[in-house]
Amino acid sequence: MNPKHIVIIGGVAGGASAAARARRHSESARITVIERGPDVSFANCGLPYHIGGEIKDREELALQTPESLRKLLNLEVLTLTEATAIDPSAKTVALRSVADGAESSIPYDQLILSPGASPLRPPLPGIDHPRILTLRNLQDMDRIIELAATSDRVAVVGAGFIGLEMAEQLLEIGKQVSLVELQPQVLPQLDPEMTRPLERKLREKGVELVLGDGIDGFEGEGDVVTAKLNSGRRIEAELVILSIGVRPDSQLAKDAGIALGPRGHITVDAFQRTSIPDIYAVGDACESADPILGGHVAIALGGPANRQGRTVADHIFLGDKALPYPGSIGTAIVRVFDLAAGVTGASENRLKMTKTPYETVTVNGPSHASYFPGAETITLKLLWSPEDGRVLGAEAVGVDGVDKRLDVLATAIRGRMTIDDLVHLEFAYAPPFGSAKDVINTAGFAATNMRDGMLIPVQTLGEAEGQQIVDVRPPAAVEKLPVPGATNIPLPTVRDRLGEIDKSRPVYTVCQMGKTSYFAARILANHGYDARSILGGAWHQAPRDGD
Amino acid sequence: MNPKHIVIIGGVAGGASAAARARRHSESARITVIERGPDVSFANCGLPYHIGGEIKDREELALQTPESLRKLLNLEVLTLTEATAIDPSAKTVALRSVADGAESSIPYDQLILSPGASPLRPPLPGIDHPRILTLRNLQDMDRIIELAATSDRVAVVGAGFIGLEMAEQLLEIGKQVSLVELQPQVLPQLDPEMTRPLERKLREKGVELVLGDGIDGFEGEGDVVTAKLNSGRRIEAELVILSIGVRPDSQLAKDAGIALGPRGHITVDAFQRTSIPDIYAVGDACESADPILGGHVAIALGGPANRQGRTVADHIFLGDKALPYPGSIGTAIVRVFDLAAGVTGASENRLKMTKTPYETVTVNGPSHASYFPGAETITLKLLWSPEDGRVLGAEAVGVDGVDKRLDVLATAIRGRMTIDDLVHLEFAYAPPFGSAKDVINTAGFAATNMRDGMLIPVQTLGEAEGQQIVDVRPPAAVEKLPVPGATNIPLPTVRDRLGEIDKSRPVYTVCQMGKTSYFAARILANHGYDARSILGGAWHQAPRDGD
Repeated sequence: MNPKHIVIIGGVAGGASAAARARRHSESARITVIERGPDVSFANCGLPYHIGGEIKDREELALQTPESLRKLLNLEVLTLTEATAIDPSAKTVALRSVADGAESSIPYDQLILSPGASPLRPPLPGIDHPRILTLRNLQDMDRIIELAATSDRVAVVGAGFIGLEMAEQLLEIGKQVSLVELQPQVLPQLDPEMTRPLERKLREKGVELVLGDGIDGFEGEGDVVTAKLNSGRRIEAELVILSIGVRPDSQLAKDAGIALGPRGHITVDAFQRTSIPDIYAVGDACESADPILGGHVAIALGGPANRQGRTVADHIFLGDKALPYPGSIGTAIVRVFDLAAGVTGASENRLKMTKTPYETVTVNGPSHASYFPGAETITLKLLWSPEDGRVLGAEAVGVDGVDKRLDVLATAIRGRMTIDDLVHLEFAYAPPFGSAKDVINTAGFAATNMRDGMLIPVQTLGEAEGQQIVDVRPPAAVEKLPVPGATNIPLPTVRDRLGEIDKSRPVYTVCQMGKTSYFAARILANHGYDARSILGGAWHQAPRDGD
Repeated sequence: MNPKHIVIIGGVAGGASAAARARRHSESARITVIERGPDVSFANCGLPYHIGGEIKDREELALQTPESLRKLLNLEVLTLTEATAIDPSAKTVALRSVADGAESSIPYDQLILSPGASPLRPPLPGIDHPRILTLRNLQDMDRIIELAATSDRVAVVGAGFIGLEMAEQLLEIGKQVSLVELQPQVLPQLDPEMTRPLERKLREKGVELVLGDGIDGFEGEGDVVTAKLNSGRRIEAELVILSIGVRPDSQLAKDAGIALGPRGHITVDAFQRTSIPDIYAVGDACESADPILGGHVAIALGGPANRQGRTVADHIFLGDKALPYPGSIGTAIVRVFDLAAGVTGASENRLKMTKTPYETVTVNGPSHASYFPGAETITLKLLWSPEDGRVLGAEAVGVDGVDKRLDVLATAIRGRMTIDDLVHLEFAYAPPFGSAKDVINTAGFAATNMRDGMLIPVQTLGEAEGQQIVDVRPPAAVEKLPVPGATNIPLPTVRDRLGEIDKSRPVYTVCQMGKTSYFAARILANHGYDARSILGGAWHQAPRDGD
């Protein structure tokens, strides 16, 4: 038998991982990587940080070069080479040189598609102006750096993960930054109330934040591009970065007759096999199973891409003994100046859209022991199934320790753990690192209290409007951030002042963070009141600068 | 029915949590807290950090006062009151005032024992010298601060969690610190090889580290205490801190006829019930179930104590509908200057002692994307069951992100997750926070590779002594930290230099961190060699200063 020939289209993330893992399985396999660009295996998640100068050396971003892959993994690497067609019956791929257009063909035993996804560039008037850029690869990055050097004002369109990173980094190098987002919030991957601290921070740092407004088109005059918004507003900039999402590069697969999902992603099974034998797909161009809600999701993230690539190589060499890819839950995080915000699993938005029954609670807790210097508040939103208590998703925002809580909850989701399990998770506690009761335990306490009838929650202050509200904070805290219409009865005095609360009406308790309001509600409930606690507290409703 | 009277002996951690949770269940219950000391609910884990001045304000450590507990929770708090006897048939507790010796008695419906554990003070010659102290409460802390002020030299005896914290904090305030430990390693809760970086760090900072040596006794001359060691060595200091472990304060329980475990801990069931009806126990004085290995363990940590207290209150009010306490897995961490080290679940030592079958692998990985500034190496040791791949324990050491990895693995252990699950854990990845392949994924890769025969591991360089060793690092790395007896064949040249390796003998590959040695071993294995990869790499065997 001749040695196997594995051909991989796309040499970044998933493709590179598949190649490396395949080589661990076999020294005799021929492994060819086809890459349209000049680079393979670069750190695409690092691109914004070189633009902002935080990653100083461009070389840091080149994780591997074609030459290093040849040496380390004995790969054939064809850069600046485009795969133009797949012939599944002949098992060949047609190639064209980007440099000279020369055409050729390469046979495969197994073909792995890792084409990735392209930044969206909608067909708007004026979109072709040369100072309207997207960021996908090192060349895009170089071009942005070049044009940023002659720009004072930058407009970033789209406030998702990459848009936020770009806004931060461009501000850090002294640009005037406008950030435009169609949704009425930044980071639409999170639920709106969780993004408020990010919005405050962006405005505080001087980013002009334009929410709930879209782009009608662009006008260029020399080096100045004017973005015309739906609202009629006009934003002038010398550089526009479009970061409004990506579209899977699945045309090649489609042309070959490979089945695609509803939004154009390549459909795959648990071994990343496409609908055509011996053709696999990995990374941003394909769908993956949704292990939380069932069905399929398209999640464009580096971690899943890498591990999908590994799965494919294992399946090529081990067949069905390989460990199947368990689907992606979509854990993601972004840093916005000194804040971090992220999500794992399903957001409330997604649960609503999929009509999945859920419960939710938002709690606040310190990043480590509150009596130890440097503790910062983390706001954690937990979503779970009322049927079996299983954790469905979580979102977090804060200055420190957000990544840790997301990683723990991602693990809990993967392990199909429940709100009862969160109560008893046992974390590494010393004052610099954690608390005897971590905010994740607190979320478990609150969630199980809700289930068990100990906590009757009200999600927001708005829901309590016009009702009997008792603010149980100390007077000094009330003065700083009053709750309109509330009577102030500080927690330690509640038992003595029961007479001031009307027992014939529901009573809504509120505090700063949602903890002592629960304590007060328990006192009242145990005295026979219909008492509800406002989750998230007054803090959550703090006015947004610039609103 | 009269309202329930709950009596709690011990007002810190578990006892305070039980009281608070009981009050959430009922406004009518009478809840009395008996505390021998003057303080309740103080932050005992913070005591070392006030001694070192890192927690500046002593008030920070008083989480609650007797007065605040009365106001917030309507508790009766009897401080400076000792419980001297329990009469289970009469359901009363005999009390004595610490101040004036006055005796009284209090009836209970439910009694909760939260007596804690006392620092060991073995009956050694000279142990009663007034400058030999232990640290348990605020008074101990005050006394240490007072004596430290007139001490240049401090000897800390016992290098467990508290001993390490004390050594660090005393050095930070300018003391000459000697740290004496009977075991040949610091932090005996971890396996020895994981503690080497801590030992290097302590010596580098100027701590005189004396390992594998015990105390024969003390001699006092004025304010100078001389510790006489087993080895004959003598250490002079003006202050000695004993931190050699704790003993459960279970005498009161024992006298009442409550069953104790083999080492004197109060035995309890999953609702923290002792052997006598209506008497519960929580915290450091009691055993808990070991959910990993079965049987019982005694784990003296704040997190478990708090959650046991909560379990008791739930059981008092909800009966068997309460969520049982699932046992403690023993997650713990310590900061030693800029390093952190910790453990969750079973250590290799404990697996050996309990004759539990296990496999282990140690991997190194960056705290976040290696191309992003500030990434630091984490060394992670993973232990799992060869029977079902279940994670049994983990240890980690590093500068940054150690707590996060321990918390994730504690969650995985609680969820009875396997090495296959670790492969596909999906973490929050952005360059400042993580990597597309986290060190936990890497541990999962290595563990599954071992199981699947892709990786034949050798734990330490020592095991390869006298064998055919191939060092696959770049020559520059070899020069800095050579491996004796190894042939240097850098990874990219291995395929070209196969002729230099004797195929008739096993070949052991080594690198800096244990990653490229695996790559090289795969190349060699696929070329027909009996190739083994030395885990942990040469880095791990770096010489220890002062050894």
